[in-house]
Amino acid sequence: MVQPLRVTVWNENVHERKNPIVAKIYPTGIHGCIAEALKIDNTVAGVADAGSEPDRRSRSATPKMIREQAAATTLEIRTATLDQVEHGLGEKVLDETDVLIWWGHAAHGKVRDAIVDRVLKRIWEGMGLIALHSSHYSKIFKRLMGTGCSLTWREAGEKERVWVCNPGHPIARGINRYFEIENTEMYGEPFAIPAPDEIVFISWYEGGDVFRSGCTWKRGNGKIFYFAPGHEVYPIYFNPSVQRVLRNAVHWAAPADSAKWIDSCPQIPISEACEPLQQKGPRIHKEGEEGFR
Amino acid sequence: MVQPLRVTVWNENVHERKNPIVAKIYPTGIHGCIAEALKIDNTVAGVADAGSEPDRRSRSATPKMIREQAAATTLEIRTATLDQVEHGLGEKVLDETDVLIWWGHAAHGKVRDAIVDRVLKRIWEGMGLIALHSSHYSKIFKRLMGTGCSLTWREAGEKERVWVCNPGHPIARGINRYFEIENTEMYGEPFAIPAPDEIVFISWYEGGDVFRSGCTWKRGNGKIFYFAPGHEVYPIYFNPSVQRVLRNAVHWAAPADSAKWIDSCPQIPISEACEPLQQKGPRIHKEGEEGFR
Amino acid sequence: MVQPLRVTVWNENVHERKNPIVAKIYPTGIHGCIAEALKIDNTVAGVADAGSEPDRRSRSATPKMIREQAAATTLEIRTATLDQVEHGLGEKVLDETDVLIWWGHAAHGKVRDAIVDRVLKRIWEGMGLIALHSSHYSKIFKRLMGTGCSLTWREAGEKERVWVCNPGHPIARGINRYFEIENTEMYGEPFAIPAPDEIVFISWYEGGDVFRSGCTWKRGNGKIFYFAPGHEVYPIYFNPSVQRVLRNAVHWAAPADSAKWIDSCPQIPISEACEPLQQKGPRIHKEGEEGFR
Amino acid sequence: MVQPLRVTVWNENVHERKNPIVAKIYPTGIHGCIAEALKIDNTVAGVADAGSEPDRRSRSATPKMIREQAAATTLEIRTATLDQVEHGLGEKVLDETDVLIWWGHAAHGKVRDAIVDRVLKRIWEGMGLIALHSSHYSKIFKRLMGTGCSLTWREAGEKERVWVCNPGHPIARGINRYFEIENTEMYGEPFAIPAPDEIVFISWYEGGDVFRSGCTWKRGNGKIFYFAPGHEVYPIYFNPSVQRVLRNAVHWAAPADSAKWIDSCPQIPISEACEPLQQKGPRIHKEGEEGFR
Repeated sequence: MVQPLRVTVWNENVHERKNPIVAKIYPTGIHGCIAEALKIDNTVAGVADAGSEPDRRSRSATPKMIREQAAATTLEIRTATLDQVEHGLGEKVLDETDVLIWWGHAAHGKVRDAIVDRVLKRIWEGMGLIALHSSHYSKIFKRLMGTGCSLTWREAGEKERVWVCNPGHPIARGINRYFEIENTEMYGEPFAIPAPDEIVFISWYEGGDVFRSGCTWKRGNGKIFYFAPGHEVYPIYFNPSVQRVLRNAVHWAAPADSAKWIDSCPQIPISEACEPLQQKGPRIHKEGEEGFR
Repeated sequence: MVQPLRVTVWNENVHERKNPIVAKIYPTGIHGCIAEALKIDNTVAGVADAGSEPDRRSRSATPKMIREQAAATTLEIRTATLDQVEHGLGEKVLDETDVLIWWGHAAHGKVRDAIVDRVLKRIWEGMGLIALHSSHYSKIFKRLMGTGCSLTWREAGEKERVWVCNPGHPIARGINRYFEIENTEMYGEPFAIPAPDEIVFISWYEGGDVFRSGCTWKRGNGKIFYFAPGHEVYPIYFNPSVQRVLRNAVHWAAPADSAKWIDSCPQIPISEACEPLQQKGPRIHKEGEEGFR
Repeated sequence: MVQPLRVTVWNENVHERKNPIVAKIYPTGIHGCIAEALKIDNTVAGVADAGSEPDRRSRSATPKMIREQAAATTLEIRTATLDQVEHGLGEKVLDETDVLIWWGHAAHGKVRDAIVDRVLKRIWEGMGLIALHSSHYSKIFKRLMGTGCSLTWREAGEKERVWVCNPGHPIARGINRYFEIENTEMYGEPFAIPAPDEIVFISWYEGGDVFRSGCTWKRGNGKIFYFAPGHEVYPIYFNPSVQRVLRNAVHWAAPADSAKWIDSCPQIPISEACEPLQQKGPRIHKEGEEGFR
Repeated sequence: MVQPLRVTVWNENVHERKNPIVAKIYPTGIHGCIAEALKIDNTVAGVADAGSEPDRRSRSATPKMIREQAAATTLEIRTATLDQVEHGLGEKVLDETDVLIWWGHAAHGKVRDAIVDRVLKRIWEGMGLIALHSSHYSKIFKRLMGTGCSLTWREAGEKERVWVCNPGHPIARGINRYFEIENTEMYGEPFAIPAPDEIVFISWYEGGDVFRSGCTWKRGNGKIFYFAPGHEVYPIYFNPSVQRVLRNAVHWAAPADSAKWIDSCPQIPISEACEPLQQKGPRIHKEGEEGFR
């Protein structure tokens, strides 16, 4: 019996309570909608949501394969929001989280630095992170990237077409050549990120722009996926292809096993060197001392 | 006439004033020593310092080539230290810096966050960064990497042999297959960094360890080189091969030209979309408004 | 019930039949030894072979975790050798192989190009490849890398210490900070490869050299792992840590699911463009025609 | 006085002699047109051709900077075509080439393997390569990538908008946020390449597709740039922005200096090991022998 994947869906949950349009689209919050989407039994629904286009020339995943894979692991899902104690991300919650999904926009600055540090540490150990839409400007994502993470944007409700760049990538499973989002906020290049390990999706916009809308990186032992769709005034997280991508990404971002990279910067005693060694010359630190940080 | 490269050598300058051993090795500070090393006229001395080993089978750089290259660009060097106003890194200084060299150890925590942010912004625009030795734990380097940046270490004064991984890399110019440092602090794997764009050097240690001691990355438009040698209680920055690497790295890290990546996250007005576009559906932001940060 | 992973162990099997020392070490061939190693029941033996060093400070994998993971997937192993029909790599064998292990040395040039092309195509679809030791110069590995793949080498039977660069990487599971090989052929830098996606191991040698001895890449949808240990005149594939790495690598290199990247370069008919489109200007190819190759 | 950059423009030169439309557009061949474009004196014309869009918000390159940079290095340009002896790429020509530009389409299969091997070897040493348009399927590009290099395509003469992904990249110098090509062949995702080191351009197409149209890699010591625009039945190489990109790319791809990576795979004699070493155990190769290839 395989262990379930433990997913925590974090949302700042601000627009849902202040903006009636958003409140109406997401009565249980964006986190509530995503949590529901993750609960869908892939063995039944996995086939129906496989994108907007009948041509499967570059894919050979069959319903049978999809079903078998989905059956192998179940998801245990919880949600957390900004206004909870420790933003809902206490030590125990993070320890028991394999993949963290993050949605933030208006309240990036209200996320406490101590919690950001805790999340970063857990990612380096091996927890996966899925950063959504405006989370490109979240403290956590910017700290992981080491760049400015800016982009260009336009809120016109235009059409977005999300293209698959690697038809065999696990995050694109069940998606054909592309899928479409009828109304979207445009996010455009230049996107100020380090070169991604892999680009899974690139988006085409009705207004004439393009964007690297699905990218992966690794930091420490943690896998990171940024996925652009998800503007709050359109019902994007109800789109079956978007939901499919989220489910795929959770499986992809999960740690390979429970092994952790504990980031400790130890002094190795001279007596424990692999090869026989004698102290030569002066030193700053005493044997056994911690280094500067 | 080619413009000179403008280099700023930054040093916390703490050990030099507190520890008599360090003070004796570096009477003008580590920054002073490095600044002197950069001033060496490559056309005369460039040949003599080309590593510890006569076999040149994997290199074909001739003295003539080295001389010609060095002649093409001159260096304008200044230094800056922690205790200066704004740590010596005012807006104007950074604007006029093409490559920043960074040495820190005991005082990482004393570098003000506002200055760190300013340096990061300038790197993203295109300024090169050379992070030395214990700067693996500096705020700036950690922010650029997005990882913990830990390593293992041992202060035994053992021998280090620095191997070249790409004999044609500009940072390895004039170095043969390897060079040696007679007394060094061991820095060992695992080194908690994102996969480097290129590994220029890997070090072998007498005590039996290894380390990725010369690595490059790009963040925004800025080139970054981490170089491990440089423990303060040994005269490592007087080593001709180490000096050679520093000079090479300065040339490598320099921006290709004066173009900058200004990281502004602009809203693109609907009327300025490349393709004709009408507003569809609701929106969060007004035309012309700034986004959330 | 999870599908088994299908592994094919390929060996040129030349030294084993010509050199009595090799024949004595590997009476069933290197492929036979590796096949046996993969068959070990990890649930029982996985703990005992976890490296040469008691210090586990940077690892937290417990026997329980290791056992659970191993139980999740079983391996179906076959072997193939150069002198078989189609080198034992017919279309059907490759179609039914999830991970291919490759060992070659004296007979790289005898591997037929048509078989090489077939293996490459299958890797791009998603089959994993583990290239061992002297296979750095195999046709397949060189074609995947696009570089010369040279290195330096010395056959002195010296000691090798293999260091873990990412303690949380699935390929390093069950290995502590390092493991040792008592007698090895030295493979040294510079190693003429493209920058790896990840470096899992770096080796230290008694004679003073270093080597990136465990590296990963992705080509198309296929995951590739190069692992340096394995010189034929020493019993290296009987080393429990080496065997452990091979088992880990097989699990790591397996395709995420059975989805394939079919590499077809289709012409998209104008009538099937996503956006309404009319032919404008002249053209080289007729509608429906194949392109040049 | 700085050495000139030596550029060789290679073209199969087939369509120009068989297809009257192409012959009319390129009376001196695509190679002739590109050679002329490279000869433009940047100090005079560099300003006028800086893209199709007035908004310079993300660029700060001034005419003065552009002029200075261009003045620093002059280009020495020659051309070579398929039907010449050794396809015009004799040992001496390649030795004297810093950057090779490649255009092929209908005759990929006619390029002799011995010449391909010679070009590859020279790239690994440090020669830059700019692969244009249908050269994604050239033998040389496929050998460097190690992947299938397929894409999707459509020949409708539709509009292409080429977006800049890094406004500070040297290859994008003088280009604003984007430039447009009025009539183009669509090249679409998925593009079967390894993850690029950097993506400089992504294209948007009128018909609804996207493509990574400007990508860089490094193989050995050689820098590689793939640039998609250039279908032969439209006058794309007369587009000032396309010409600008070609000139920029030549400067970017040039070797940092004349240092070479000679790819020799030497046996290191035991007596020349860095650390004292004695032969232990048996060996396959005699001292001084070459290895298998």
